[in-house]
Amino acid sequence: MYNRILIANRGEIALRIIRACKELGIETVAIFSEADRDAAYLKLADEAYCVGPAKSAQSYLKIDRVISAAEVGNVEAIHPGYGFLAENAEFNDICRSCNIDFIGPTPEAMAKLGDKNTARTMAREANVPVVPGSGGLIEDEDEALKIAHEIGFPVLIKATAGGGGRGMRVAANDLVLKNALNQAQTEAAAAFGNAGVYIEKYVEHPRHVEVQVIADHHGNAVHLFERECSTQRRHQKLIEESPAPNLSPETREAICSAAVRMIKAADYQNAGTVEFIVDKDENFYFIEVNARIQVEHCVTEMVTGIDLIQAQIRVASGEPLPWKQEDIKLQGAAIECRINAEDADRNFMPCPGKINQLIVPGGPGVRFDSHVYSGYTVPPHYDSMIGKLLVHRASRPEAIRCMLRALDEIRTDGITTTANFHKKVLNHSAFAEGKIDTTFVERTWFS
Amino acid sequence: MYNRILIANRGEIALRIIRACKELGIETVAIFSEADRDAAYLKLADEAYCVGPAKSAQSYLKIDRVISAAEVGNVEAIHPGYGFLAENAEFNDICRSCNIDFIGPTPEAMAKLGDKNTARTMAREANVPVVPGSGGLIEDEDEALKIAHEIGFPVLIKATAGGGGRGMRVAANDLVLKNALNQAQTEAAAAFGNAGVYIEKYVEHPRHVEVQVIADHHGNAVHLFERECSTQRRHQKLIEESPAPNLSPETREAICSAAVRMIKAADYQNAGTVEFIVDKDENFYFIEVNARIQVEHCVTEMVTGIDLIQAQIRVASGEPLPWKQEDIKLQGAAIECRINAEDADRNFMPCPGKINQLIVPGGPGVRFDSHVYSGYTVPPHYDSMIGKLLVHRASRPEAIRCMLRALDEIRTDGITTTANFHKKVLNHSAFAEGKIDTTFVERTWFS
Repeated sequence: MYNRILIANRGEIALRIIRACKELGIETVAIFSEADRDAAYLKLADEAYCVGPAKSAQSYLKIDRVISAAEVGNVEAIHPGYGFLAENAEFNDICRSCNIDFIGPTPEAMAKLGDKNTARTMAREANVPVVPGSGGLIEDEDEALKIAHEIGFPVLIKATAGGGGRGMRVAANDLVLKNALNQAQTEAAAAFGNAGVYIEKYVEHPRHVEVQVIADHHGNAVHLFERECSTQRRHQKLIEESPAPNLSPETREAICSAAVRMIKAADYQNAGTVEFIVDKDENFYFIEVNARIQVEHCVTEMVTGIDLIQAQIRVASGEPLPWKQEDIKLQGAAIECRINAEDADRNFMPCPGKINQLIVPGGPGVRFDSHVYSGYTVPPHYDSMIGKLLVHRASRPEAIRCMLRALDEIRTDGITTTANFHKKVLNHSAFAEGKIDTTFVERTWFS
Repeated sequence: MYNRILIANRGEIALRIIRACKELGIETVAIFSEADRDAAYLKLADEAYCVGPAKSAQSYLKIDRVISAAEVGNVEAIHPGYGFLAENAEFNDICRSCNIDFIGPTPEAMAKLGDKNTARTMAREANVPVVPGSGGLIEDEDEALKIAHEIGFPVLIKATAGGGGRGMRVAANDLVLKNALNQAQTEAAAAFGNAGVYIEKYVEHPRHVEVQVIADHHGNAVHLFERECSTQRRHQKLIEESPAPNLSPETREAICSAAVRMIKAADYQNAGTVEFIVDKDENFYFIEVNARIQVEHCVTEMVTGIDLIQAQIRVASGEPLPWKQEDIKLQGAAIECRINAEDADRNFMPCPGKINQLIVPGGPGVRFDSHVYSGYTVPPHYDSMIGKLLVHRASRPEAIRCMLRALDEIRTDGITTTANFHKKVLNHSAFAEGKIDTTFVERTWFS
């Protein structure tokens, strides 16, 4: 086991990693930008080094400075957290050249999974479903109809050179497909100088379901069940939960097994997340692998009782996984609300500033992972999340009620947060029934 | 289910009960003394009434004022919390006359259990072990020897009129017993004008182990396993945990079953605690029943996943217990440290005052039940507990490490607390090995 680790991050995740290290008896070296001098996590680290000015490009993202801090701090490993350098294969590789363990997958696995086409091909080879489609460009109307009949309507026609919705059409039957194909090709040619289009299955109202996985350096890989992350706005997750509501046990088993096959195929080590979209009939399709710990890992910790950051560190240091798949059980329901310093009434505009008074929710089932405190000034330079409010209860309805009372308790006088918006979501009947997909929030409040 | 409940208490337990009510959809009426006007729990209650000046005898203990608040507040039930009126059978009875449900046992069960001799007799009848002894006064030396041989040495000779250790002697063999009997009788006669003495088994280095029980109004009673509360100083609990370390599964089963027999014998309803002392050979003896919720109920909540306050309210309203005994499982290990505004270096002198800055521990496995916040002034009028720091981990060693890092995180600038003393205890090898009894803290730090 390591004696000393550098944490290449800031905010709540830096604090989270320090907590794990302390419980493992590992010393910690923190880094900070000039804007983070007063951060609470610095007080809990054994050492801390300034790596530059407020702008992340000049501090948290500066590989040479982070590596210097690691060398001066004499650490054996670096935990990258999420964001910043967490999925930077070059940084990962430099750590290796410097004989510092990177707490995550190898640079090779990270690079392979970072390329969407390579990842998709690996998925197919591992018998992990991907969104069905033509695979290549469509030659003519007959081929388009043939493929559409194979994969089933509705289908999506997409320009190969496309983006921003141009050259894109949805078709629900033969007649529409014929017209749409022409329109899409014409539009694509005009917009991108390339008329090439391909077809894939159009997934209506998809759910975002992801599976937490972890693999060691001895060939063992397990999943820690799934998280439902469909409560999003503009692809930003607002609420995550585990287990996913209204998912049949058969689908749960199938999607979780697929995730394990995927990371085994990728020769992946350490913790990772396999993302899927799920349609209304519970068909699921691989999207990508997040080769890092995620913000929402805590809901999985709550329903499994497993400390994922500690597990990451143990695996990186060479320990085998301490559990077999059948040892890992789902217990109860956990929900996370991301508390952001944003004004939901003003298009979620960031609201940094001083928190005059912080009151932290407590009591049974509640966890608040946060780096802020009374008197702390949220700097404008970084993402606006000031904490993750989590609850764990015996059932989802109880978890929702627990979260609502915890949201009532939280006070962040001086700044505006998304806490009230979360209450609206949690009080909505569709949310209560678990009838959520990635369009739910925008359909309901922003259309 | 009730619509509205009055909470006849203050501080963290008032907040705890409000949290339970909110999750159950019940409105709350709080009471407060003039010293508690700024208390955080008042902001979370639906209504609040002042019941008098700071002194509890003139406010929280004033039955007529509490009842008035309940009537004005139009509540259907009163939760008494712990302390104050919680075990006052008269108050309990007055609630009944006013047609307000008292969330706890009946006044009759409370009164019966409040009398130690009645309780001891009930225990014997229910086949629950009590400390063996002469039962009545000792006539002469021969009888003393006979009883000592029956119950086994060492024995304790106690003056029937005694107190404060006078007229009390420990005897480990026949010779000592003969001398000690004379001495005790002489001393008792001189001190109390009554030479009567009796004999009971002397339990050396006893552990304090208590069993959480709950019974409904339909004849169902279950236990929620035990708590180890041996880490005390002058009979004040400092640290409580569940399960009790180094307790064999057979003893656990036996002591928990005995607790259920006891409350069934007492025709007891709602939550309660059956207290035992346990000797080094795991013999256990009934001491008393605490006819209320206890400070340390949360460790039981953590290892069983059951919300005890919600369960109390449901049972009081007439719902049957939702579980059978076999549904209740012990998971992992939980520890509670009572964080008191006291100076451990000055004989645990209370240190009320203003908390300039509060930093609350967080992260996996941590729960902090507290009514204080940054800027709150701890009043000098009540007990000095400012919060309960709790952890829940897969095993006791992990829970200890988690508690140590949580104790590192807590900050209460402005006042002195017992947090540092708890670190000393948790870092002690005897505590780590679970070799604790009620004399451990005093033997180790105060002798």
